[in-house]
Amino acid sequence: MSGISHATVSRLPRYLRLLEELEGAHETVSSDDLAVAAGVNAANVRRDLSDLEFQGTRGVGYSVPSLGDRIRRELGIESRRLVAIIGAGNLGTALARYDGLAKRGFDVTAIYDTDPNRVGQSIGDVQIQRMEDMPMDCKVGCFDMAILAVPANAAQSVTDLLVKEGVHSILNFAPVRVSVPEGVAVRQVDLSTELQILSYYG
Amino acid sequence: MSGISHATVSRLPRYLRLLEELEGAHETVSSDDLAVAAGVNAANVRRDLSDLEFQGTRGVGYSVPSLGDRIRRELGIESRRLVAIIGAGNLGTALARYDGLAKRGFDVTAIYDTDPNRVGQSIGDVQIQRMEDMPMDCKVGCFDMAILAVPANAAQSVTDLLVKEGVHSILNFAPVRVSVPEGVAVRQVDLSTELQILSYYG
Repeated sequence: MSGISHATVSRLPRYLRLLEELEGAHETVSSDDLAVAAGVNAANVRRDLSDLEFQGTRGVGYSVPSLGDRIRRELGIESRRLVAIIGAGNLGTALARYDGLAKRGFDVTAIYDTDPNRVGQSIGDVQIQRMEDMPMDCKVGCFDMAILAVPANAAQSVTDLLVKEGVHSILNFAPVRVSVPEGVAVRQVDLSTELQILSYYG
Repeated sequence: MSGISHATVSRLPRYLRLLEELEGAHETVSSDDLAVAAGVNAANVRRDLSDLEFQGTRGVGYSVPSLGDRIRRELGIESRRLVAIIGAGNLGTALARYDGLAKRGFDVTAIYDTDPNRVGQSIGDVQIQRMEDMPMDCKVGCFDMAILAVPANAAQSVTDLLVKEGVHSILNFAPVRVSVPEGVAVRQVDLSTELQILSYYG
């Protein structure tokens, strides 16, 4: 991991989105097009890519396949990542069915729930398992990232269990902050943030 | 609307999140604490708030209630906003049940679906209605923002219908871009972006 800024990291998926649309059809992309994709200006793009030590060609632009590879490597998604979803309620089910994950290199390999009526049912190809099965699945490398789609009051205890089993990337959709020890990355997704930003523009 | 940058706008909800946690318990907040909440540095915070023409007091910080009010006014959320959810599948249902929306000032006042088996059922206090009822509800001011939780292949036609009825704030969870005329704000939520950023840190 190089020491690029958080703002740069958060723009990389947006650049990658455009690059993946262009791959196969275009060889190069301009900083202007990348800027539009990320909602910043072209100077930002050039600085971001220079932080990645990625060079463009004046008057030509950046190589689409090379820049895509470079960003995937930086994000740690050159190979597919295996993801568990904890909680098979409406949100967990929606996430498990969400096309976008597989398309972006994330395979949902396990889904857990505490509700005995949900356990044994399938979402797509994946059967819902008992929470008790999670630690062993984690040990054998069934997944290495987890998405929390549990109620607020269960979020911390599930997080503790995941951390104990060695998971150190957690995406938290539960509407509460969870605390983790150093070395574990958590991102809290607050769906109302998007509505607040939208409210400014709409 | 003042001419503040997109980057500033997107940080305002994060500042507001912290301010709302502090409201009632603390009178002032430092730029350092605001910086941590938004994942930027204190100089960014000072510049953002100066762009809002909001003054702090040296050595004391920023007034929590006044800054909260200023940001809510800037975002256009001083009064509650009325939101329709289009699509009562797993994602639409999860969003309708998501506590965070009401807590942040967004009231879900209507939910629509095309599935006759879903129409008439309720999610919380809100009864699912036929898509055909949407235009009239919109005319009488039942909502002024919409969340799209429909399949990709329905996203554009539903967007066109919303725009025709005068809705100009649309939050799109469908995994496809929709086009809108000038003056209409759309935000595309791509849930895999968060996983990609997490992958960098995890």
